[in-house]
Amino acid sequence: MNRAALQWRTEPRAQDAPAVERLAAESGFFNAEEVAVARELVEERLAKGLASGYLFVFAEEQGKLLGYACYGPIAGTQASWDLYWIVVERGLRGQGVGGRILAETERLAREGGAARLYVETSSREQYSPTRRFYLSKGYGLEAELRDFYAPGDDKLILVKDLV
Amino acid sequence: MNRAALQWRTEPRAQDAPAVERLAAESGFFNAEEVAVARELVEERLAKGLASGYLFVFAEEQGKLLGYACYGPIAGTQASWDLYWIVVERGLRGQGVGGRILAETERLAREGGAARLYVETSSREQYSPTRRFYLSKGYGLEAELRDFYAPGDDKLILVKDLV
Repeated sequence: MNRAALQWRTEPRAQDAPAVERLAAESGFFNAEEVAVARELVEERLAKGLASGYLFVFAEEQGKLLGYACYGPIAGTQASWDLYWIVVERGLRGQGVGGRILAETERLAREGGAARLYVETSSREQYSPTRRFYLSKGYGLEAELRDFYAPGDDKLILVKDLV
Repeated sequence: MNRAALQWRTEPRAQDAPAVERLAAESGFFNAEEVAVARELVEERLAKGLASGYLFVFAEEQGKLLGYACYGPIAGTQASWDLYWIVVERGLRGQGVGGRILAETERLAREGGAARLYVETSSREQYSPTRRFYLSKGYGLEAELRDFYAPGDDKLILVKDLV
């Protein structure tokens, strides 16, 4: 893929809701409930605008959605932000698209006043590529909540300082 | 106060929204943004019912609200629940009302399938009574997110096993 070809868009459109649902479902990383949430966040943003607290970065090539991230400031904090979702088209894995989306998200979050970006993931073996991805991008393990998701399935909280 | 006098109610009414706002504002523990959130959670529950994910325990004496808790299951987890709020009428502090509300909340959460209850608080000195309260009720410190709320103001995550 031509690295120069990615276009960025931050304003969600109605058709992003089904597109995001498809990307998340096809990724194999999320269960049905999580896929529904991915779509709902787009719909909530479309309904409530920036007051929803959900910001988006869509990566496109000639109008086709290749991946996206959803992030936003954490209410009640001075400068802590959450990365809620990052999804890349299944066929494009390993080509650095996720890293480029993450870098663009960090740039926009920093521009918006973020001092640090949090991300949550599971301790399950299935998510070890996710953990490796974040660790390779400068995120550090900040906390582990034992058995949070289910017995033996901990929640890991990673964080990166953006300033 | 007569310990036998507390009545429990779990179904929110319209008048709980301003009553909860008043309790939270008068407590001195919450800023204006947090007080607004306390009220909004009641309103969201009234609008969406149980689908809101917000459950309530109101402690009353002869129809007067003395304190309440807001809690609920954490989406995407098997049996992890959050305690979002617990507030006691300012004039009743130190009389064990908070402990009774917490015990009733834990009982109802357990009945609803909770295996553990999480609570978040700040590392600031102002919240040391809050931390002591939870530690004395069997909660343990599970994680610390440094500078989460602001520089020098960490988020503490405590948890209690309910089963």
